[in-house]
Amino acid sequence: MPEAYRALEASFARISHLRGALSVLQWDHQVMMPPGGNGVRAEQMATLRETVHGLLTSPETGELLDRAEQPSGELDPWQAANLCEMRRSHLHATAVPADLVTALVRATTTAEMTWREARKRSDFAMLRPGLEEVVRLTREEASAKAEAFGSSPHDALLDGYEPGTTTADIDALFEPLAAFLPEVLERVLERQTEPLPLDGHFPAAGQKLLGERLMSALGFDFERGRLDESLHPFCGGVPDDIRMTTRYDEDDAFSGLLAIVHETGHALYNAGLPRDWRHQPVGKPRSFGVHESQSLMVEMQVCRSREFLQYLAPSLSETFGVDGAAFSADNLYRQAIRVERSLIRVDADEVTYPLHIVLRYRLEKALLTGDLTVGDLPGAWNEGMRELLGVEPPDERRGVLQDIHWPSGAIGYFPCYTLGAIMAAQLRAAMLEAEPELPSQIAKGDFSRLLAWLRANVHEQGSRYDVRELLTRATGRPLELQPFLAHLEARYLA
Amino acid sequence: MPEAYRALEASFARISHLRGALSVLQWDHQVMMPPGGNGVRAEQMATLRETVHGLLTSPETGELLDRAEQPSGELDPWQAANLCEMRRSHLHATAVPADLVTALVRATTTAEMTWREARKRSDFAMLRPGLEEVVRLTREEASAKAEAFGSSPHDALLDGYEPGTTTADIDALFEPLAAFLPEVLERVLERQTEPLPLDGHFPAAGQKLLGERLMSALGFDFERGRLDESLHPFCGGVPDDIRMTTRYDEDDAFSGLLAIVHETGHALYNAGLPRDWRHQPVGKPRSFGVHESQSLMVEMQVCRSREFLQYLAPSLSETFGVDGAAFSADNLYRQAIRVERSLIRVDADEVTYPLHIVLRYRLEKALLTGDLTVGDLPGAWNEGMRELLGVEPPDERRGVLQDIHWPSGAIGYFPCYTLGAIMAAQLRAAMLEAEPELPSQIAKGDFSRLLAWLRANVHEQGSRYDVRELLTRATGRPLELQPFLAHLEARYLA
Repeated sequence: MPEAYRALEASFARISHLRGALSVLQWDHQVMMPPGGNGVRAEQMATLRETVHGLLTSPETGELLDRAEQPSGELDPWQAANLCEMRRSHLHATAVPADLVTALVRATTTAEMTWREARKRSDFAMLRPGLEEVVRLTREEASAKAEAFGSSPHDALLDGYEPGTTTADIDALFEPLAAFLPEVLERVLERQTEPLPLDGHFPAAGQKLLGERLMSALGFDFERGRLDESLHPFCGGVPDDIRMTTRYDEDDAFSGLLAIVHETGHALYNAGLPRDWRHQPVGKPRSFGVHESQSLMVEMQVCRSREFLQYLAPSLSETFGVDGAAFSADNLYRQAIRVERSLIRVDADEVTYPLHIVLRYRLEKALLTGDLTVGDLPGAWNEGMRELLGVEPPDERRGVLQDIHWPSGAIGYFPCYTLGAIMAAQLRAAMLEAEPELPSQIAKGDFSRLLAWLRANVHEQGSRYDVRELLTRATGRPLELQPFLAHLEARYLA
Repeated sequence: MPEAYRALEASFARISHLRGALSVLQWDHQVMMPPGGNGVRAEQMATLRETVHGLLTSPETGELLDRAEQPSGELDPWQAANLCEMRRSHLHATAVPADLVTALVRATTTAEMTWREARKRSDFAMLRPGLEEVVRLTREEASAKAEAFGSSPHDALLDGYEPGTTTADIDALFEPLAAFLPEVLERVLERQTEPLPLDGHFPAAGQKLLGERLMSALGFDFERGRLDESLHPFCGGVPDDIRMTTRYDEDDAFSGLLAIVHETGHALYNAGLPRDWRHQPVGKPRSFGVHESQSLMVEMQVCRSREFLQYLAPSLSETFGVDGAAFSADNLYRQAIRVERSLIRVDADEVTYPLHIVLRYRLEKALLTGDLTVGDLPGAWNEGMRELLGVEPPDERRGVLQDIHWPSGAIGYFPCYTLGAIMAAQLRAAMLEAEPELPSQIAKGDFSRLLAWLRANVHEQGSRYDVRELLTRATGRPLELQPFLAHLEARYLA
């Protein structure tokens, strides 16, 4: 192994450990920290991020990359892929001038805080100047990265979330989706039967116990992770020390459990990353879209299936002492696949969710090109909601102000949610061909083959291949819309 | 403010934030982390420590110090004191060659692990080679620091724990203590009345509730800190985010509470450090001895007083539904000041504890000079126990193997415990002169004047003065033995 490459591995391992420390501090911030710690915690995390940035952008790292990239034939395929990922990280970090990085941190911190207040007051005008600044600086960032990567500004931003996937790739998936889905939605709404309500009181302790049992069954290892509570469920930590959270609504037996299985999908991906490469760029999750595909595989494809709900129903009855038709597997399934036109993305079902994403994707692309101004955003939002979802936001809180992503600077991120949904459907179709007994195993609560297939085909591949290659190896084809549409057809219209 | 000094402040603030992050990670490690996280957490913490070491020892820091130390008259007294502390940190970090630092980390990590097993098996021979290596490397470290500081090797090590206090200072306190205490102990044992046993079951939840009430009464702010459980009680975190732990023994109403008030003393010191200087060396706790003086002030001086136990007795009865003579203030006081010849330092009472420390201090000094070999340590230990405490360890587990300090490389640390006890007595005597109503306030559960005095005279001084000056300003005199002996006399022999 060439010396320059070895020095890079040492340096990127340091970066991985600093980011691991950051991840634990973020978990602690959300789950454990007393409120008085806010100020000092922000400074600790900023210092760690600056240290990472300093390592990534140091001239020494650049020189080592140049030297390691000299053709020498001494790198094995994992090492070669690792070197590509190192270069990509270095390019992202060095493309943006230091003063722009600082300005972005300042602008997004301010806009995030303003957003919290503006959303509470349902007042977009309050957020507008802050968001204009974030958009302006993000356009500068995108131009700088476009120059470094030799791509379009939007593609350059996308590469930070979904490397290798271009604006053209997404357009090719999202435009047919936008064309088909409203009509699919219409048909689903016409024919779905309203489920019986799941009335009752469902103590948090019982939800936690049942949730932990499901996590263990799905393959979560409590020797290497834990489950806690936070305002918004998330999955953080590092592969041997996973920090998952959820929240419990004691009037709702179902939503807390579905949040748990969703985050378990993320957790299983992190836990299954290639052990030998964990602290190197090639051993990290491939992309946000692939990550979301793993949470949606578990939540949407597996746990909202009829088979899973056959397995769940008795445990649910036993844990909460509930019974009757409402808690039958059939009714639970009707609950799990209930569809409605909705205003809020995070509460949306599998059919309408992509429409929320298409709207945001169109708007953020237009903001970046300058075809849309921040001032025109609320109008464009409402128009898009009418067109795509057939609903009209009654106020800005339930409209353009609902998501934190844009004020926090994550412009270009939204497509990953729906790319993940499309990938999950395609992966499941391939998995079922390889493992036709899977549904009957799931009905018995046996998830071992499911996990084994995901481990081999996704988790243990880390970032060795780009998404196109990863999917082609796993499913025989690059990402395409058809399996997702077939899945919706089978589940909602069969 | 000169530019070089300003740059140093920025750099030392980064160091403070990295160490703050480390402190949260350490707390998490002891309190929250699943066991599988051990390996990766060790790497995260090592990376953070290396980053701190890199900042401290960088040539740039050395040059900035040289420039900032040019007489310019532009620094105010806090800044000037801060600059001195910066130089001291830099000297400690640069004095030891990098390969020796690495060797020490490796040797102490190994010896600590071996110690856990050796203690379990009560087998010093198992630890001996590892401890020999730690002692050998620590002697090298001490020589290197002695050269940098122009002091003796033992003084140079001491400066890392108790800056400004010399071996001669400690000898002048400890030798009279070793001469007086065995005879004091004899007299105390002759005249003390055995307390009634505190029989009962004391649920952890009740202990926690009562403990939190005591913490709040003493001045702990739960908006800026929390209380959890760990195997060994400790106080970590940072001033606005204090992480205190304790453990509960449900057969013992008292020991958990005393651990809580001890750690509360540490917590109040951290919380009271000068707000404007928190992230600079001058705003850190003065020394380990001063830190221990604050925990012993609260635990020993205040909470084991007759007045405090008058205040505590009704809450204890109410919380646990206990009553009768055993739970009277008088009997609780007899429990709190019960003395016995003991084998284990951490369980020792106020009278015998210093004898445990004198033994360790004599032995570690002799190890450093080479007058004692590691092989001769068990014999010397047992001989010292007979001489000072009049007991004979029945095995090595309850003898020379009981403490983690030496295997973990903390050679020179032990004196701080007893320096803290002596300081606490001297501080309390001065405080009582200024605040003669204090005992009657304590009997009513009013600790506000106590905290105000400690804040003004100790906490808010940070590291502005050396210990000698700090004590002289607070009490009119440098550290001396007399108030501690007077305290023992008054409490145990009056």
